[in-house]
Amino acid sequence: MMNSVNPYVSVDCVLLGFDGERLNALVVRQTNAEKGNDTGCYKLPGSLINMDEDLDDAAQRVLKQLTGLVQVKMVQFKAFGGAQRLANPRDSIWLERYHHLEHHLERIVTIAYLSLLRIDRKMAKLDSGYEAQWIPIDELPQLAFDHSEIVKEAVQSVKKMTALDPTMFFDLLPRKFTATQLRKLMESVTDDKVDIKNFHKKLAKMPYLVLLEEKEEGVSHRAARFYKFKRK
Amino acid sequence: MMNSVNPYVSVDCVLLGFDGERLNALVVRQTNAEKGNDTGCYKLPGSLINMDEDLDDAAQRVLKQLTGLVQVKMVQFKAFGGAQRLANPRDSIWLERYHHLEHHLERIVTIAYLSLLRIDRKMAKLDSGYEAQWIPIDELPQLAFDHSEIVKEAVQSVKKMTALDPTMFFDLLPRKFTATQLRKLMESVTDDKVDIKNFHKKLAKMPYLVLLEEKEEGVSHRAARFYKFKRK
Repeated sequence: MMNSVNPYVSVDCVLLGFDGERLNALVVRQTNAEKGNDTGCYKLPGSLINMDEDLDDAAQRVLKQLTGLVQVKMVQFKAFGGAQRLANPRDSIWLERYHHLEHHLERIVTIAYLSLLRIDRKMAKLDSGYEAQWIPIDELPQLAFDHSEIVKEAVQSVKKMTALDPTMFFDLLPRKFTATQLRKLMESVTDDKVDIKNFHKKLAKMPYLVLLEEKEEGVSHRAARFYKFKRK
Repeated sequence: MMNSVNPYVSVDCVLLGFDGERLNALVVRQTNAEKGNDTGCYKLPGSLINMDEDLDDAAQRVLKQLTGLVQVKMVQFKAFGGAQRLANPRDSIWLERYHHLEHHLERIVTIAYLSLLRIDRKMAKLDSGYEAQWIPIDELPQLAFDHSEIVKEAVQSVKKMTALDPTMFFDLLPRKFTATQLRKLMESVTDDKVDIKNFHKKLAKMPYLVLLEEKEEGVSHRAARFYKFKRK
């Protein structure tokens, strides 16, 4: 078999990070324009799977290829398989060219992966035709395929999961963080204002939080003490 | 296109029920043996999706077709896409014949759905070539494809989900149930013994449980009072 790509199944990776103010998603864009391709369009890091490749392996492979990120802990989050996912000819034509496919793509079901990670993790371009970029969720342009919908559902899913298990928030924060950073993160995930007045009391009740002696340095406002997360 | 079946993507439904003693899974078996097909093999209700069919629709369609069950609330639970899922020729040959496919199936990624439901829901065979049957999890024979693994992961997932949200247990119980039934259900999901001594105290603290005046009838042991579940 000449072409070992599975033309019906893909993986897409939703990586969410926190920049101190807002939730961001990692998106990629093709830079080596071929004439007629819409290369201005952002999309999630993703790819058709290879015929002999497990799903989890495919997700790690494509993430490394497009962003240089390795050993990112991703979990499967949902399969997106609307029959009309490829309705925009721009998207399917681009895919067919990218994979040098000879036949027309009819239908792709994508398995979406999700990861919460520190936004400062180092990226390195391996596929020189792509650039990866963190963009705040509320500033994301319309993404290719149904990727805007996938990001939206991923954020909803994080909202539900952190309500059940708030320790998930700490995957998104730096090792040491201030109460304000944690509050802003919670607000950006839940889309709700947190009550500032009772927030420090609330933090004192979280058994997995440790208040450190160390304070912020070089800030114009009153320096806040750092917290760190203690895994049990 | 003559054949509108998508040869790369399927859906499989894990339906779990509780028989009062143990967790059961609903499995199907082909009854109209064609010569050379292994029809003795149980599998999950599932099918390749149609080319123009959304995933959720496919899951409902195949469940109705093989078991007669309609309007079952199912949620996507995980995609299974190991490259070796079709390694047993028995499984792939059966599928090719069933769908009258002319080419060899190379690879199928299946989207698994999960539902917790009352085991007494009425079933009706629509596809006369199949029979559906509830079998206790711990008595399940080896299923076709990787379906044994899928059931195992589904039970693990229910274990995690009910730990976070115990009200999920009530989808599996009759409208009125005894403390013993609830305890046995919890034990069969968590695979752990529940402390009988403190169990009634524990129940009294569950805000979503109502103790009824009504008691069991016609039992040889001391009749127990029923509980019912109160949705908030």
